[in-house]
Amino acid sequence: MAKQDPYRIYLTEEQIPKQWLNIRGFMKDKPDPMIHPGTGKPIVKEDLLPIFCDELAAQELDEDNKYVDIPDEVREFYKLYRPSPLCRAYNLEKALGTPAKIYYKFEGNNTSGSHKLNAAVPMAYYAKEQGLKGLTTETGAGQWGTALSIACKYYGLDLCVYMVSGSFKQKPYRKAVIETYGAKIIASPSNTTNAGRAVLAEHPDTSGSLGCAISEAVEVAVQDPSLRYVLGSVMNQVLLHQSVIGIESKTAMEQLNAYPDIIIGCAGGGSNLGGLIAPFVADKLEGKANPYIIAVEPASCPSLTRGTYAYDFGDIAKITPLVKMYTLGCEFLPSPNHAGGLRYHGMSPLVSKLYHDKLIDKAISAEQTKVFEAAKLFAQSETILPAPESSHAIYAAVQEALKCKESGEAKTILFGLTGTGYFDMTAYMDFNAGTMGDYIPTDEEIKIK
Amino acid sequence: MAKQDPYRIYLTEEQIPKQWLNIRGFMKDKPDPMIHPGTGKPIVKEDLLPIFCDELAAQELDEDNKYVDIPDEVREFYKLYRPSPLCRAYNLEKALGTPAKIYYKFEGNNTSGSHKLNAAVPMAYYAKEQGLKGLTTETGAGQWGTALSIACKYYGLDLCVYMVSGSFKQKPYRKAVIETYGAKIIASPSNTTNAGRAVLAEHPDTSGSLGCAISEAVEVAVQDPSLRYVLGSVMNQVLLHQSVIGIESKTAMEQLNAYPDIIIGCAGGGSNLGGLIAPFVADKLEGKANPYIIAVEPASCPSLTRGTYAYDFGDIAKITPLVKMYTLGCEFLPSPNHAGGLRYHGMSPLVSKLYHDKLIDKAISAEQTKVFEAAKLFAQSETILPAPESSHAIYAAVQEALKCKESGEAKTILFGLTGTGYFDMTAYMDFNAGTMGDYIPTDEEIKIK
Repeated sequence: MAKQDPYRIYLTEEQIPKQWLNIRGFMKDKPDPMIHPGTGKPIVKEDLLPIFCDELAAQELDEDNKYVDIPDEVREFYKLYRPSPLCRAYNLEKALGTPAKIYYKFEGNNTSGSHKLNAAVPMAYYAKEQGLKGLTTETGAGQWGTALSIACKYYGLDLCVYMVSGSFKQKPYRKAVIETYGAKIIASPSNTTNAGRAVLAEHPDTSGSLGCAISEAVEVAVQDPSLRYVLGSVMNQVLLHQSVIGIESKTAMEQLNAYPDIIIGCAGGGSNLGGLIAPFVADKLEGKANPYIIAVEPASCPSLTRGTYAYDFGDIAKITPLVKMYTLGCEFLPSPNHAGGLRYHGMSPLVSKLYHDKLIDKAISAEQTKVFEAAKLFAQSETILPAPESSHAIYAAVQEALKCKESGEAKTILFGLTGTGYFDMTAYMDFNAGTMGDYIPTDEEIKIK
Repeated sequence: MAKQDPYRIYLTEEQIPKQWLNIRGFMKDKPDPMIHPGTGKPIVKEDLLPIFCDELAAQELDEDNKYVDIPDEVREFYKLYRPSPLCRAYNLEKALGTPAKIYYKFEGNNTSGSHKLNAAVPMAYYAKEQGLKGLTTETGAGQWGTALSIACKYYGLDLCVYMVSGSFKQKPYRKAVIETYGAKIIASPSNTTNAGRAVLAEHPDTSGSLGCAISEAVEVAVQDPSLRYVLGSVMNQVLLHQSVIGIESKTAMEQLNAYPDIIIGCAGGGSNLGGLIAPFVADKLEGKANPYIIAVEPASCPSLTRGTYAYDFGDIAKITPLVKMYTLGCEFLPSPNHAGGLRYHGMSPLVSKLYHDKLIDKAISAEQTKVFEAAKLFAQSETILPAPESSHAIYAAVQEALKCKESGEAKTILFGLTGTGYFDMTAYMDFNAGTMGDYIPTDEEIKIK
């Protein structure tokens, strides 16, 4: 009898990747460049240096290298929570009665509760190496702020987190975690910056926005040469760092003599999806394999499925460079009742390019009540309580597995389980009580202004 | 150069124990028997059958077998989250500047957030095997209720959880998790039982107690032949199931050619401590090794360090059998401002016996402000945010490591990290704000009435 796959495969510490995979290095047709909003010219490294660490600015613009060495000190930190397990969803398969083999890469077993730590660690490391004193960032739901606070404490850096005021009040526990790791956390808009003061003067009762929090964090960073700003998604550098997810997944599957027919990731800013699919897209570009890749986004914030592929700003205040991406318009405000990590008006330019070039085969959107049905089924069968964001991928995996049940095909499905839902219980309460609604924006709302 | 220990050692699925270890089977001098409060005679299996599943009743009284087979179906469930990692605390060692080698067994990587699932799984399994319809239990802080809800959903059993009313109101997220796994959860005291109605009639505004919640859960179970009651700590059967913690720890250390000089566990009801030390106590009893074992309890609830070794009731309502244990008196009410999982007036009779017989070498108590100092140091160096309960063990491990720094001895320390603190952030907020107080009961308060 053939030996059965284990429920969970942990690679060894030595198998933590030694290099990140840079998808752009494999692409003949590169993504369109970032454009400086003042000059209208492509951004060069020097433009980024006041904001980002030198090494991260270089990584952001690196279209040539296929692989980038992971510094030993970063790998040492990764060993504290990686390799993350690749899990076989035997119980979910059974619950669905599908012949499909479902695997998921689980990134939630660390205190940040998600994959965000994979990028926070190198960002903090490069800042430390450059001799900087600290970093600034913004956080919405709080996962990114938590991840960065853990990394900054480890490397001995100061951290100042601007947290969207509404979340700041609603999620005091996230704030408590971030403070436990020694970071300063400020509700945005605040009186600590010109940007914040201007917004407060006009809207004294605002609950804030990610756009405003970005403006505040950037303002503080550019005014002090010993500080830099970091961002947890969307950017090329983030997708580069997140490639550890995909590389480990592929290695673990190789050990099982398996290769995915279908790969599924949730998509907000694109950091998890871009990381998960990295080595598989490289296989596609090199003609080695052709897995079917599906991006899943919320129906309330459908940038890939209903957005426009165009140059747009990354923030509502229009202070970032212009990037070519699928966008709902930088002034689009998604409904508040949704997975915080997927509420971005645009999509990573790299993920956008891959989708436009059909290297990502399909994008779908899902209503949150459907997503939470899948989440609950998953929790009850696989025991892990998934984050709302991750549950978008679960939803699509269930759909694909049910198609296999219909057709009798035993396809191999891999999806990314980005995190746990322990800090999202209000969403589950809403769902359990049957009071969760769905919100789908009108065409007028997603028209780029 | 000698190969360095990895940060985290994961055993393979095949290395999940096939048998639990029953410490009583190794003891020549057995613990004193449970006594029936009505007859004054030792409890026999038949006395337990109306309350507990048949197999669990047998396990409770089994003093002979050294090992008990773990059913395959239980091992299948264990594979969903076990083996748990044995971690080397390199960063904590570095932060302390100690020559000691510190290892910790981390039981928090499952949705219950703690080791509680290890006992919940077999309990639900045996109930299912007996053809029962469901289980009842009580929960204080909510960890046990969560673990049991996950296990009952997996085996298709109904579950009714009586949650202490104060916690029920304070911890809506715990309730939401339990409901997501399909269990019914009722604030205790309630109008669903005679016990609850009686308490409510006398104290309509009470915030409830564990004693009352136990009374309600037992009352419901004994009135319906298709239901049984289960308890998550204190009992012999629980310590038996929790022995997987110690067995896996010992196996992993053997792979590293290591054996602990010092073993440390937090002690509330005794489930984690008893499980962690099981194979090491067996070594002591067989004269194979003599590790130094330390139990750590809160200064606010110091049963081992300040209690009396005597027969006492397990609950405030005096409906349980009498057990010989270290106790502060069954009417003792610990201060509310503490680790919920360690607020029990007594201690597992088996742990009590081991301590009385000096097989547990030392018990210490720790004030919560000191415990949270250790918790924060641990979080910042090892990245895991520990539960308040677990942090008692961290506190003692730090003390022992500092003694090694003093003496220059490179001792090997193993402690149990029972869980994560994600649902305990109010305690961290209290600590971060500098408003956390310590409470040490007076001699009068811990006098057995």
